[in-house]
Formats: sequence, C-alpha cells, structure tokens
Amino acid sequence: MKIRVGICGYGNLGRGVEAGIAHNSDMELVAVFTRRRPTESLKIKANVPVVHVDDVADWVGKIDVMILCGGSAKDLPEQTPELAKLFNTVDSFDTHARIPEYFAAVDRVARASGTVSIVSVGWDPGLFSLMRLYMSAVLPSGATHTFWGKGVSQGHSDAVRRVDGVADAVQYTIPIESAVERVKRGEVAEFTAREKHERVCFVVAEAGADLARIEREIKEMPHYFADYDTTVNFISTEELRANHGKLMHGGRVIHSGETSVGNAQVVEFSLELGSNPEFTASVLLAYARAAARLAGSGEVGARTVFDVPPALVAQASWEDLVRELL
Amino acid sequence: MKIRVGICGYGNLGRGVEAGIAHNSDMELVAVFTRRRPTESLKIKANVPVVHVDDVADWVGKIDVMILCGGSAKDLPEQTPELAKLFNTVDSFDTHARIPEYFAAVDRVARASGTVSIVSVGWDPGLFSLMRLYMSAVLPSGATHTFWGKGVSQGHSDAVRRVDGVADAVQYTIPIESAVERVKRGEVAEFTAREKHERVCFVVAEAGADLARIEREIKEMPHYFADYDTTVNFISTEELRANHGKLMHGGRVIHSGETSVGNAQVVEFSLELGSNPEFTASVLLAYARAAARLAGSGEVGARTVFDVPPALVAQASWEDLVRELL
Repeated sequence: MKIRVGICGYGNLGRGVEAGIAHNSDMELVAVFTRRRPTESLKIKANVPVVHVDDVADWVGKIDVMILCGGSAKDLPEQTPELAKLFNTVDSFDTHARIPEYFAAVDRVARASGTVSIVSVGWDPGLFSLMRLYMSAVLPSGATHTFWGKGVSQGHSDAVRRVDGVADAVQYTIPIESAVERVKRGEVAEFTAREKHERVCFVVAEAGADLARIEREIKEMPHYFADYDTTVNFISTEELRANHGKLMHGGRVIHSGETSVGNAQVVEFSLELGSNPEFTASVLLAYARAAARLAGSGEVGARTVFDVPPALVAQASWEDLVRELL
Repeated sequence: MKIRVGICGYGNLGRGVEAGIAHNSDMELVAVFTRRRPTESLKIKANVPVVHVDDVADWVGKIDVMILCGGSAKDLPEQTPELAKLFNTVDSFDTHARIPEYFAAVDRVARASGTVSIVSVGWDPGLFSLMRLYMSAVLPSGATHTFWGKGVSQGHSDAVRRVDGVADAVQYTIPIESAVERVKRGEVAEFTAREKHERVCFVVAEAGADLARIEREIKEMPHYFADYDTTVNFISTEELRANHGKLMHGGRVIHSGETSVGNAQVVEFSLELGSNPEFTASVLLAYARAAARLAGSGEVGARTVFDVPPALVAQASWEDLVRELL
C-alpha cells in the first residue's frame, strides 16, 4: 500500500512536493490544504482535492503523513503543533536558533497524540546538518565550515524588495572562494561574515526613484547586508525575468582535520541545486517515508534527521540497500 | 565512564585506531590483541598490554568494544563471529559482494551472545555507502556514481609485487576527470571500468629483471589491470621511499538528477585523505561509540551504518548536537 501524503501550503515548496511525488513510486498525493478561501481559486497540477485547512480533521485516517510547506517565521510554529495532533508530519522549520523550543513544542503534542513528527528537514537544516555531524564525529579534532551559494536567498531578496523605491529584486549569496580554499587547506581560521560570503543584488527600481539612496539603504541594512560586501546592480524588469527567475541555490560543508601530524583529511559535501524548493521538497518526501515507517512500528514523538536511521529514508528494502549500496 | 576499547590486529589500521583514540576524549584503549607470538616482540605506542588473541576471553568485562583491524580476505570472516561471542565489535569488512553472508553470520552469533556488532564500517563501505543511500533516497530519479582516488590501492599494489622480478611497488587508482565532469553535468552515462579510472604503477625491479615482461604481465593481469589503461613506471627503491610512501587515498560519490524538467540537482561527497588507514580508523572509532551505546540500551545483533541513528556516532549530547549542528 502506498504512503498517503497530504501537502499543507501551496507555495514554491508545496509545488515542489507535488512534483516530487512522481519520483517516489511508493507514495501518492491525497489532498492539498490551503488557508485560501475560496479553495476553488487555487489551481494545482495534481488531480486531488484542494481543501481548506479548517476542514483538515476530516482527513484523519486518510493521510499517513502531512508535509508542512509553510514558512518558518509565522506558519510552522503555529501549524505544526496543531497538525501533529492529527497526523504524522514532516516540516522544514529552518530558524536554527529556535529549533530546540520548536522541537519541544512539537514533541509534546506528538507524544500526547500518538503521532510522529520529523522537524527541520531539508538541506540546511537537514542534509548539511547530517554532514556536520558525521564529519565532526569522525574527525573530532578538525573544524567544520559551511558555505552557502551561489544561490538566491529568499529572505534577503524580500528585504531588498521592502526598500522604498524598489519594484522587484533578487539577491544572490556567493561564497568567497579564497575562504573556501583556506578551509580546504586545513588552515585553522575564524572568519568574519564578510570573509566567507558576499551579496549581490539585482534591483528593479521604480520610475524616478533615487538610485543612490536605494543602494545606500540596502548596503547599510543591519543583519542582512551591513556585515557583508554587497554589490547593487540596477536592471530592467525584463532582464530580471529573463536572467534571474531561477530559484537556484547550493552550498558546501567542508571539514578539515589531521588524524596525526602531517596526515590531513579533508571531507566535503556540496550541493548545486537548479531549484532550491524542489530539492528541499525531495528531502521532505524521503523523510515522510521515514515518518510513516516510524509510526508504523509504534514510535511516537518528534524526531530530527539526527535520530532517523538512514535505511528508513530509502524506498528500497534493507536487503537491497545492503546488496546494492553498502 | 570512558568507553573501553580493544584493538585486534596491529597493522596500519590498528595503528590508526591507536592514534585516533587520542582525538576521542570519551574513549580509552585497554589492550592490543595480536596473533603474533611472542607478544613481547610487538612494539606499540600506547602504554597498554599486548595480548595474544588466544587469551582474549580473559578480557570479557574489561572491554566495551573490540575494534577488529584484520583483513577482509582471511581474518575477519573467521575472527568476527568468534569475537562477537564475547564482545561488542566494529569492523571494516570491505568485500562488497560478500557483505550479506558476512552480516548474517555475525548477526547470528551476536544475537545468541547478547552483543552488538557493527559491520563494514569505514569510508567505502561506510561513509560512501551512507552518501549513496541518502542521495538516491532524496533524488530517486537520478544516478549515483562513485569514483575512487587519486590514491594508493593496497590490493593492486600487492598484485604488482607478486609479479616475478618485482622487488617493490605502489599502485595509484586515478579517477578520469572527463567522466567525473560528465556525471556532474547530469549526463546519463554507463561507463566501462576503463572510462572511469586509470591505474598508474611505480615499480622497483630486481636487478637484471626483464622490464618489458614485467610491464606486460602487469598490464595483462585479469581483474586487476586488464580492464584499465595502466601505466608502469620503473623507479629506484630510494625514489619509491621518498615519493610514494604515503597511504593517501580519497574519492567522490556524485549524484545527479532532475526534480523537474530543466531543474538539475547535483550532490557530491568527496574525501581527500592524507592517510587512508587513519581515516578508516577514525570512522571505526565513531561507530565503536555507537556500538557501545546500542549495547548499553539493550540492543543485540549485527548492524550496518544504514541502521545506526546518526546521533549515536557523535560524542556530544543530543541537545548540543541539535543546538550546534542542526
């Protein structure tokens, strides 16, 4: 029997999950849930019902895992504990600093409700977290560095769009290769934010806007840009659409350490993603499988990627995994 | 209380484990076991007893995990089932085709004896296996390729040394970069052995040996060299010692797949190892920790890296892992 999946939230990530299910023959999409009313106005690709989240309780017993595709700032902290009362869930909560309290809140509900929730799944947090763990466990004396990009940061793009006089914008996070090279050489280095990444913005200004002011406001924006070398390029709407429409991203986790004097060991994990949301969705689907299996064997409560035995995320049987991949 | 570790077998791998324990403050070496008699003739670095394996039963209750550092061809298939009767074990059994039967034999003994054995731990099988699993689980429609090298292959070096007239030799396995690039570009390609790797030998010939015959015998050796483009370089003993003494190795696992038309996703894991045995030993130590924890929580039987929750291999507490690495 296939794993019956629900999607809650139909933005880029939800659409990525919808597309990804086609690659997983052991799963089927059952319904898409949205807060939009009327739900008829939401056009989806799959031939399944679009349901308002207020009616989600009607789907208990019809969905094995609900994949939560809302945002980390407002949606997930509210939605996940609510939905974990009714369903096994996976989500991509990515506000790193708030994961412990988020985990605790979801765990409480899931234990009380007899469900399984795997939280903070994706590539960072997610696969990158796994790599940081494996690398530092194997080479405890070394140092792990994470670089992001080249890729589009949604949060930073949004921040630029909020500047007065900006009609549209895309922001790229770009790793600084000289820092990457120093890490790979095993240099013990503490980097500032500026030394690891630069930020490049492509901005469509409103007609008559003061470009110098816009550029200054972006570059001086605290947290987002002030700590980085930032470049601002003004372009046309047409150019933005033609050249900067892809949600590409990626990054690298690099660990360098010595096992004995003179024996350097370098471990690297890298992603080059044509579509950030579709890749994140693919990771969510693999962990939805694990959530269904954990629940099926009677487990309850919240889990992280650190807690899930690797074999549970793969579709193949354990025997096939050992024979073909070990 | 520290995890008390025993080392069984004191070749390159055993010495790597001995060196690696210094990087793991939660572990201590208790004894080194050898088949050599008299054991006094074996000089080790650590200040612990050297014990003949025939006396290993005296150490039950004094060792939490025995790290088996013998070879896969003859030592481990015999030793692991014997020692799993008495101790929790980890090993690096790496004859891929025989892992299922090896696992079954060890599992039978471990279940009957109430011990935990984690088998086939290292980097391939081991970390590379984990990467193949995670990559193919997340991107089921793509293809995974493993490249090895540049690095010294012990098996191939030994094969060259067995050729008549060869005094000493080192063989490097080298990945063919054009194949690596094709995989990264997402080309769906089936490679022959020759298209993925080449082999380069540095050979010290005995005085008066027929170099042309040696070269021909190496290049025509079935399984080892006949299916590859092989280069044979004759050098002096001094040059071999000066330039080819390091047991460096490494490799890459690359997965490329599309999540939707036009959205390519490339995932890569790579190792550049200054010392192959020391890195393998480091992985064994991390999984020795997991074996001790699994046994401590009452589990029994054999496990692979696919079965071990990632958090169990790290020294830090779960709370610290979530706060610092997730």
